[in-house]
Amino acid sequence: MPTPGLIKDIVITPVAFHDMPLLNSVGVHEPFALRSIVEVIADDGTYGLGESYGDAVHLDRLRKAAKDLIGVSVYNTNVINAKCVAALADDTATGGDGMAGLVTTASAADKVFSPFEVACLDIQGKRAGVPVSELLGGRVRDNVQFSAYLFYKWAGHPNDPEGDDIYGAALDPEGLVKQARHIIDEYGFKAIKLKGGVFPPEQEVAAIKALHKAFPGVPLRIDPNAAWTVETSNKVAKELDGILEYLEDPTPDIEGMAAVAKVASMPLATNMAVVAFPHLPPSIAQGAVQVVLSDHHFWGGLRKSQVLAGICETWGMHLSMHSNSHLGISLAAMAHLAAATPNINYACDTHWPWKRKDEDVVLDGALIWKGGGVEVPTTPGLGVELDRAKLAKLHQQYLDCGLQKRDDTAYMQKFHPEYSNKLPRW
Amino acid sequence: MPTPGLIKDIVITPVAFHDMPLLNSVGVHEPFALRSIVEVIADDGTYGLGESYGDAVHLDRLRKAAKDLIGVSVYNTNVINAKCVAALADDTATGGDGMAGLVTTASAADKVFSPFEVACLDIQGKRAGVPVSELLGGRVRDNVQFSAYLFYKWAGHPNDPEGDDIYGAALDPEGLVKQARHIIDEYGFKAIKLKGGVFPPEQEVAAIKALHKAFPGVPLRIDPNAAWTVETSNKVAKELDGILEYLEDPTPDIEGMAAVAKVASMPLATNMAVVAFPHLPPSIAQGAVQVVLSDHHFWGGLRKSQVLAGICETWGMHLSMHSNSHLGISLAAMAHLAAATPNINYACDTHWPWKRKDEDVVLDGALIWKGGGVEVPTTPGLGVELDRAKLAKLHQQYLDCGLQKRDDTAYMQKFHPEYSNKLPRW
Repeated sequence: MPTPGLIKDIVITPVAFHDMPLLNSVGVHEPFALRSIVEVIADDGTYGLGESYGDAVHLDRLRKAAKDLIGVSVYNTNVINAKCVAALADDTATGGDGMAGLVTTASAADKVFSPFEVACLDIQGKRAGVPVSELLGGRVRDNVQFSAYLFYKWAGHPNDPEGDDIYGAALDPEGLVKQARHIIDEYGFKAIKLKGGVFPPEQEVAAIKALHKAFPGVPLRIDPNAAWTVETSNKVAKELDGILEYLEDPTPDIEGMAAVAKVASMPLATNMAVVAFPHLPPSIAQGAVQVVLSDHHFWGGLRKSQVLAGICETWGMHLSMHSNSHLGISLAAMAHLAAATPNINYACDTHWPWKRKDEDVVLDGALIWKGGGVEVPTTPGLGVELDRAKLAKLHQQYLDCGLQKRDDTAYMQKFHPEYSNKLPRW
Repeated sequence: MPTPGLIKDIVITPVAFHDMPLLNSVGVHEPFALRSIVEVIADDGTYGLGESYGDAVHLDRLRKAAKDLIGVSVYNTNVINAKCVAALADDTATGGDGMAGLVTTASAADKVFSPFEVACLDIQGKRAGVPVSELLGGRVRDNVQFSAYLFYKWAGHPNDPEGDDIYGAALDPEGLVKQARHIIDEYGFKAIKLKGGVFPPEQEVAAIKALHKAFPGVPLRIDPNAAWTVETSNKVAKELDGILEYLEDPTPDIEGMAAVAKVASMPLATNMAVVAFPHLPPSIAQGAVQVVLSDHHFWGGLRKSQVLAGICETWGMHLSMHSNSHLGISLAAMAHLAAATPNINYACDTHWPWKRKDEDVVLDGALIWKGGGVEVPTTPGLGVELDRAKLAKLHQQYLDCGLQKRDDTAYMQKFHPEYSNKLPRW
């Protein structure tokens, strides 16, 4: 007789893993990225995994909601969602977005619910003997394609006794082409994204043109994280006409994106202007966005991401996937979701290449990279299992590093006190 | 070692069950209603059930698609959907809507996919030991409320040797109040819907007022199935201000509904103007509809109905459920779906009281009516099992009755040759 599948316990472990000095429109990545590892344990001892942001405010919210989930069925994610909403009803904390201020208007409840839902689906899959992709409607692809996610970067973290990192500096077109070569040689990615918003737009336009020349026929994207005015965005769009497959978040807000969309020849993509369901009606009414970069971490989990996919299909918008610095649990969840979502029709984003290969919380071997994509796990649940020794190591690293939230701007100001994170900057 | 869950066989059985002479805007119900019973058999011998329309054109489409589904995983409803779309790619048949011409613009592929998806979810639930509601996110309610669905009707089918049916005639306000009392006494429904579009609007307004007087405080709705012009609809809306909880399909088309919505004080509901995903963008842009009456039989199954629910939530539309004459498999599927859809916030429609109690295809006892609703089954899958003797009887009835499609208009014309089904009529 199977148990009913009630939640017996939830363990939330903050972890830190090494990150590289990647530049963006609000600063530079700190030496460590923070994540929370959520372990839901069911009444039969089966555990499920979720992964989310590691900022202190978010950890507090996760813990607050988790208390109310004990005894709830892992099959009742509707009730789990309602309990997360209720637990945060009088939440007045600010921050906790885990995205250095770049995405601040996502729903706190959706962000808190997400790792619990993923963990419950992991348990459901394990109990039924089916992969999570099959709980979501089944795989339409066995390999989920990702893009080569290029960053302007310093050679290494200042004062790091280990010296330069394995990628070295990339501060000009030549450096980026070299970086792209390095990453594509290793992973086989078939699309390239450049995180821009770091240097004046003309330098970044030159970088994209250099990439276009070095990798003819490879789809290209640039994402300045809203660093440009509408006017600058329109100018860049014109310069890169025929070169970009899409232009990502050139300028802030739905209204700004709508103004650029009227002029730009290429589709506009976003993971900043439209990051929660209430943003869809005004965005659609204004034709602001043509590609939604979904992210189950802030869109309320895997099933709500599929609702978003249905909305994109209904209104003729395209769909791809946004990424933050993440570990293997998130990658597995992204792979299952993308595999079961027919209309994800661009290579998704991932920060995976920027992570040290020996740092993760899951056992090696479950996530296999092949031809620019991840093979979708076919074992029950997410298909990844916790490596408790590695988890302990990354948790100790969290305690030792002393970071409590992601703050790219403050870290930049440590070295450049005059730096400000004004958006748009150009 | 469990089997992979591949589809081994599909059996499609047309059935007929007795119906009463219920009047609507295009005619009158014939003595039998037709349905198709879809039985999907998996490689481990587990079977799953679906129920759909029984018109010949629809049966042909179901059979055509079914051939391509053998060997597909019951967990891969994405692939099953794609195969249904492909099987119907060169389908040029007209009709087959199973709704007497009242809903003609729903997607044929969505209608064909739906019973296969429901049957596959039934199998998934049986194999995992969980009810279908838990495959859809879990129950937020244990009892799904339905409305008392009143019809103008004749006393019995003309020339029926059995004479009048158990409800008798309802051709005026008094008859409808009596009918409502009969149905509510038996089922305990807490909302009332009147199928209108049968008599001149002033008579139907009088009927609603009589029901309002007889059942004070009970939410009321009227559905003339697009029998009224915009002008008439606006007049009726004014007459029934403060009395109706919503006004259903007063007039044809999204544009017509939008024109009424601008004037009417109560929300407008539809299962005619918006019956497929492509109808949502224009309807939302025009503010045509405030309540979508979803129906998994034509919205592409249970998961797509949940996408519809997400769209309704995102755009602030309300959600309820439409019904056709149906048997227990459909009722079970509707109950699981409604139980797992938090924003279904009106009592759903069902034709259940118009069905003879001894006519169904499922074993007695699984579907329990209580307090105006159905208790959501908590056993694995849909929670209903096939009664093969009853199925055989209803299939024989299908063969004997000779009906090949629903045609309320032709049946009306048999007795009133001058009858035409002009919409709008008034």
